[in-house]
Amino acid sequence: MGKIKTLIIQKSLKLDCGKIIKDFPIAYETYGKLNKKKSNAILVFHALTGDQFVSGINPITKKDGWWSFAVGPNKAIDTNKFFVICANVIGGCMGSYGPNCKDANTNEALGINFPVITINDMVNAQYNLLEFFDIEKLFSVIGGSMGGMQVLQFASNFPNKVKTVIPIACTSNHSAQNIAFNELGRQAITADNYWNNGDYYTNTNHPNKGLAVARMAAHITYLSKKGLQKKFGRKLQQRDDLKFGFDADFQIESYLRYQGSVFVDRFDANSYLYITRAMDYFDLTKQFDGNLSKAFLNTKAKFFVISFTSDWLYPTQENKEIVFALNSIGVDVGFVEIDSDKGHDSFLLDVPDFLNALRNFLEKSIN
Amino acid sequence: MGKIKTLIIQKSLKLDCGKIIKDFPIAYETYGKLNKKKSNAILVFHALTGDQFVSGINPITKKDGWWSFAVGPNKAIDTNKFFVICANVIGGCMGSYGPNCKDANTNEALGINFPVITINDMVNAQYNLLEFFDIEKLFSVIGGSMGGMQVLQFASNFPNKVKTVIPIACTSNHSAQNIAFNELGRQAITADNYWNNGDYYTNTNHPNKGLAVARMAAHITYLSKKGLQKKFGRKLQQRDDLKFGFDADFQIESYLRYQGSVFVDRFDANSYLYITRAMDYFDLTKQFDGNLSKAFLNTKAKFFVISFTSDWLYPTQENKEIVFALNSIGVDVGFVEIDSDKGHDSFLLDVPDFLNALRNFLEKSIN
Repeated sequence: MGKIKTLIIQKSLKLDCGKIIKDFPIAYETYGKLNKKKSNAILVFHALTGDQFVSGINPITKKDGWWSFAVGPNKAIDTNKFFVICANVIGGCMGSYGPNCKDANTNEALGINFPVITINDMVNAQYNLLEFFDIEKLFSVIGGSMGGMQVLQFASNFPNKVKTVIPIACTSNHSAQNIAFNELGRQAITADNYWNNGDYYTNTNHPNKGLAVARMAAHITYLSKKGLQKKFGRKLQQRDDLKFGFDADFQIESYLRYQGSVFVDRFDANSYLYITRAMDYFDLTKQFDGNLSKAFLNTKAKFFVISFTSDWLYPTQENKEIVFALNSIGVDVGFVEIDSDKGHDSFLLDVPDFLNALRNFLEKSIN
Repeated sequence: MGKIKTLIIQKSLKLDCGKIIKDFPIAYETYGKLNKKKSNAILVFHALTGDQFVSGINPITKKDGWWSFAVGPNKAIDTNKFFVICANVIGGCMGSYGPNCKDANTNEALGINFPVITINDMVNAQYNLLEFFDIEKLFSVIGGSMGGMQVLQFASNFPNKVKTVIPIACTSNHSAQNIAFNELGRQAITADNYWNNGDYYTNTNHPNKGLAVARMAAHITYLSKKGLQKKFGRKLQQRDDLKFGFDADFQIESYLRYQGSVFVDRFDANSYLYITRAMDYFDLTKQFDGNLSKAFLNTKAKFFVISFTSDWLYPTQENKEIVFALNSIGVDVGFVEIDSDKGHDSFLLDVPDFLNALRNFLEKSIN
């Protein structure tokens, strides 16, 4: 896959599970130009099903990059001004070290022999990109959802390496309901006979049905009840009336089926297991003995926390807890709750209030 | 199954799909005694996964009946005073006409040859119980969730046959989000290879994994985010720390797995498909040309609508729409929103404010 830029990390990295990895790949992409002072770099972290192809056309899927609304020339994260780097997380399936990588000894895909990784592991792996680009200090770390968790972990691990920190629609510790939805997805995948205990890469059939069900479940959580009602309601799918069968009568049904079916073409079921596990394990508060403020004691960065009114997966209250923790130790932090009925997905969509807030914060932080 | 009382309906019933059924079974149970005037009968309608065994020990599962908190001697629905009848819905799997019934011609289970049924069909089938017990007018129809939908449909279809009407935690038309969650459950079931297009009754393997995933998905929606956080949070399952594997680390994970595993012992996957379909098809407003009030124009019954603060599946707003529709035509209707963090499941649980409200309304309505 020549379309994927890959950096082989030759230093060893001790994972939270205790295992040490070495000579592993980090796949990345960049947008814009790094200036001479190397002061305009932004590290963007992707969410559960994202990848390094933030903007423009994704060369693998041939679709728009996942954050094309926010990142690009003259966009909120303006690539005429900033040098944007994004890496595929370890555990992912777009070129970084993940369960679809081959074991050097057996030449077979790792599958569930891949180690269980954490958000902390992801961030520590990506830190190597700073050395690769010879960047002393990032202008910003930005990400939504699981990307926001990485933002928080990065700011905590490397307090002197970043000027501004923008966690969006995220949390400092995964809630019981979110663990429940992730577990549901994992159960759907492992219930698929073709999952075959994670060993399916050379088989004709992959656990696509299970992965599609997992995606459908997650997709419902990305949208708000009100947004779904406005967009779909009880509208029927190319038919005048109910058909009294199990085909998709309602538009919401065919929409979900479509979301499931296109997802399996671009994502690996084992990666879904590993990345959701990393999200569930994320508890920055617990890492600092129950005091989230301690995670940021050494930071001099400016923070900007963004939430969305209709996001019920990472509701405003959970985002505010981050603000409170920063406030209590006097860290410079801004916060905005954006009014949107598009649910958790708001951060990926064309929500002008959000994009303007993001743009303004970055612009003001340049000087 | 001698523990199941069954009435064979010898009249023909035209279903909404157009098919006419005849000589089909309705399985039912009763609690308390019908008085001489036959004026103390309450027809209780069960929800998606319920059955006719409302109270006491369910003779099939050996567990408490699904509404034991509410129904029984001296309970809110006091069987010392009232004669409670509950029937398994058609489409169900506890003795009423459903996909696990055998085709008289082939002597094989109907499977997906069972007709797609509606809430209206369920109610019309159960109406036969009034004739069977020679009841001119029910004291009340009561039900939560899908049971509430049946309550509304019954009150609309048979306005002179009931004195009081108590829909609980329900809606007059299934929302896009609720259709989405039901579709997710159906996709999980049909993704299971053992589902075999609904033809599995004589096979060794049933689609239990798919059905368990469907149940897990639904179960999450029955609880509130806050309730889950209070009950489970990030508590670990009989272990001191994370195990860096895919076993259940968190209590919420093992709880969900348990809910899935016990469900498959008592429920039929095809019934799950048919009953969720009936829920999704429910739109009493559409039945009356977009005017819900018209559904109740002929009623003289007293209504009492109950919702719960943390129910996000059938939120208060949707319950209030029923109240507004009744108000606008001057129907006698009471309404209460019960404060509870137990989510949609509140109506099945020991929520004293709810049970007291139910008891008080029934007591006052006796005279």
